Amino acid sequence: MASQNSTKFQGWVGHDAEAAKGNMKWGEFEPKKWTEDDVDIEISHCGVCGSDIHTLKSGWWETPYPCVVGHEIVGRAVRVGKNVEHIRVGDRVGVGAQARSCLKEDCPDCSSGLENHCRNESLHTYGSVYPGDEGKTYGGYADHNRTNGRFVFKIPDGLDSAVAAPMLCGGVTMFAPLKRNGCGPGKRVGIVGVGGLGHFGVLFARALGADRVVGISRRAAKRDDVLALGADEYIATDDEADWAAKHARSLDLVVCTVSSARMPLEGYLSLLDTNGTLVLVGAPDGGELPKINVFSLLLKAVRVGGSFIGSPGEIEEMLRLAAEKNVRPWIQERPLREANQAIVDMEYGKARYRYVLVNEHYGKH
Amino acid sequence: MASQNSTKFQGWVGHDAEAAKGNMKWGEFEPKKWTEDDVDIEISHCGVCGSDIHTLKSGWWETPYPCVVGHEIVGRAVRVGKNVEHIRVGDRVGVGAQARSCLKEDCPDCSSGLENHCRNESLHTYGSVYPGDEGKTYGGYADHNRTNGRFVFKIPDGLDSAVAAPMLCGGVTMFAPLKRNGCGPGKRVGIVGVGGLGHFGVLFARALGADRVVGISRRAAKRDDVLALGADEYIATDDEADWAAKHARSLDLVVCTVSSARMPLEGYLSLLDTNGTLVLVGAPDGGELPKINVFSLLLKAVRVGGSFIGSPGEIEEMLRLAAEKNVRPWIQERPLREANQAIVDMEYGKARYRYVLVNEHYGKH
Repeated sequence: MASQNSTKFQGWVGHDAEAAKGNMKWGEFEPKKWTEDDVDIEISHCGVCGSDIHTLKSGWWETPYPCVVGHEIVGRAVRVGKNVEHIRVGDRVGVGAQARSCLKEDCPDCSSGLENHCRNESLHTYGSVYPGDEGKTYGGYADHNRTNGRFVFKIPDGLDSAVAAPMLCGGVTMFAPLKRNGCGPGKRVGIVGVGGLGHFGVLFARALGADRVVGISRRAAKRDDVLALGADEYIATDDEADWAAKHARSLDLVVCTVSSARMPLEGYLSLLDTNGTLVLVGAPDGGELPKINVFSLLLKAVRVGGSFIGSPGEIEEMLRLAAEKNVRPWIQERPLREANQAIVDMEYGKARYRYVLVNEHYGKH
Repeated sequence: MASQNSTKFQGWVGHDAEAAKGNMKWGEFEPKKWTEDDVDIEISHCGVCGSDIHTLKSGWWETPYPCVVGHEIVGRAVRVGKNVEHIRVGDRVGVGAQARSCLKEDCPDCSSGLENHCRNESLHTYGSVYPGDEGKTYGGYADHNRTNGRFVFKIPDGLDSAVAAPMLCGGVTMFAPLKRNGCGPGKRVGIVGVGGLGHFGVLFARALGADRVVGISRRAAKRDDVLALGADEYIATDDEADWAAKHARSLDLVVCTVSSARMPLEGYLSLLDTNGTLVLVGAPDGGELPKINVFSLLLKAVRVGGSFIGSPGEIEEMLRLAAEKNVRPWIQERPLREANQAIVDMEYGKARYRYVLVNEHYGKH
């Protein structure tokens, strides 16, 4: 790789919405123009996230093709801008999920640890695909990545690269709402939808010390997996009659990863005890939610909130906790050359529970 | 009044749903059987609350007629049960709004200052009209009231009885969500619907020391009133085009008193800044809310919650604050003999902003 202004990287390029069906093409692309705030990374691992597919198919908004997706990146820093103080060349680093944040000192969000909610960029392009003043940013299904150092983190020594990668978006999407809403000793926590995202919820709720962790998904067939992940109990909403009444008021905090306008939202609310909180982290295309009955909120003083990835501060805290508590997500490594098949398999629901692409050239950890 | 088991009180009795149209009948009724947990009160003042009308007409649920409504009661304690330690005969006291709470020591709600959210009584009968083991409880459009001492409070000396009465439900319905959600210095607070409830919101947000208080109602005609109440700004949602965009992200906390399935809920959410909270305290018959778009919750990490009257602890805290800060609700005193006309006028929207019935016999404060 030449790190001059004329740098070219190589990766799996999506040229149009067809790419989401497993039609990305391997090829060269020109990263955004180098600034002294940036870090160039030789990528060893990149997690496959559901939002990669939303981006490839322009599901949430129009994607500026050509694109390279992937925002759960781990690798080695090979070039570090002068303004980046916390990273050195040779460090093993990760790139955290990022919204398009202005990172300006006078931004109320970016200056207060809420970079992921930056108000100054109207295009909330999730992941790493967006046009900017210095050219387009590209993601991690590639050999290299160039990212603003604010979103680059040293990976703690105790954490494998393949394990750390999917935490950088999937993990923190669950860690942030758990942490912000008091998950810990004395709390009973439910995770709705135990898949790529939700399985992190079970793991982090446990690592944060919740008294009780309950996995909630549709099918009874997932029970053994969910208990093996560390949950105390499993609720199968499609297969247990009267689950909402039977488990009413049994939880203080529920984080819901489901993104469907037909989910049984009132049922999830019934699981909450007085003063409980339901946090939504999933978003169906269009954003439509089932209707909520106001008495469900009033009589128990419960609230429904949203959470969106996590801030750099939350990512660092999560990585420390994961190393300390030896949090082990269930991942399946796939060679980077199989990226097209991996997204097809992911969309088909085959991942148990998260795919990580391993770069054949740099993927030794 | 004789305080024997055969006690009879007199008051405005509702015999069926017609009572809500101004057809309550003055007459005798038998209060619930005396227990040593109770206090008998000679009523001097009783506020008129919107929920009185809901109760009279069986709007939220079927009311057990005959009933006497009114749950913003102030008067003198004339009999005090042996188990009631904080009240003495002769004290000027108020009866706080109450759900039907079990008040048992092993109730997670009643034992933790959340009596208003008691889980052990499925009939959430708001106010003072409900059947119980000791007979039916009646409300305050009457000469006397008998209530469990847990819901009886000494009125601080600095607070007029006519001023204290409507705080006991209307006031605390606004005070509780403000206090629980951090209203105070550094916060920008909006109150949606500046009427009988909402005007307390403006007053208490100010008394709690919010940096900025904004009244939000439909018509521009209310502007002068709302500013006179102490608001810094007024937003007229029916009369200001683009109000939601113009005032976007200008508030940290919004308490909404509107009870309509057609309210512009997405517009209210747009007023919230990152990490903001919207609390609903109003409930339309049926409880239907407008749909919420999940992106409105996710991208700014905001939440929508509900709050329901207030706990005894919150009522005491509110009364202290009101006395200390000289909080002055806008009330209109009406003689108790005009109760029927008062509820008709209230329903018609004439109150500015709260009627208080004054008992001609005992209403000297």
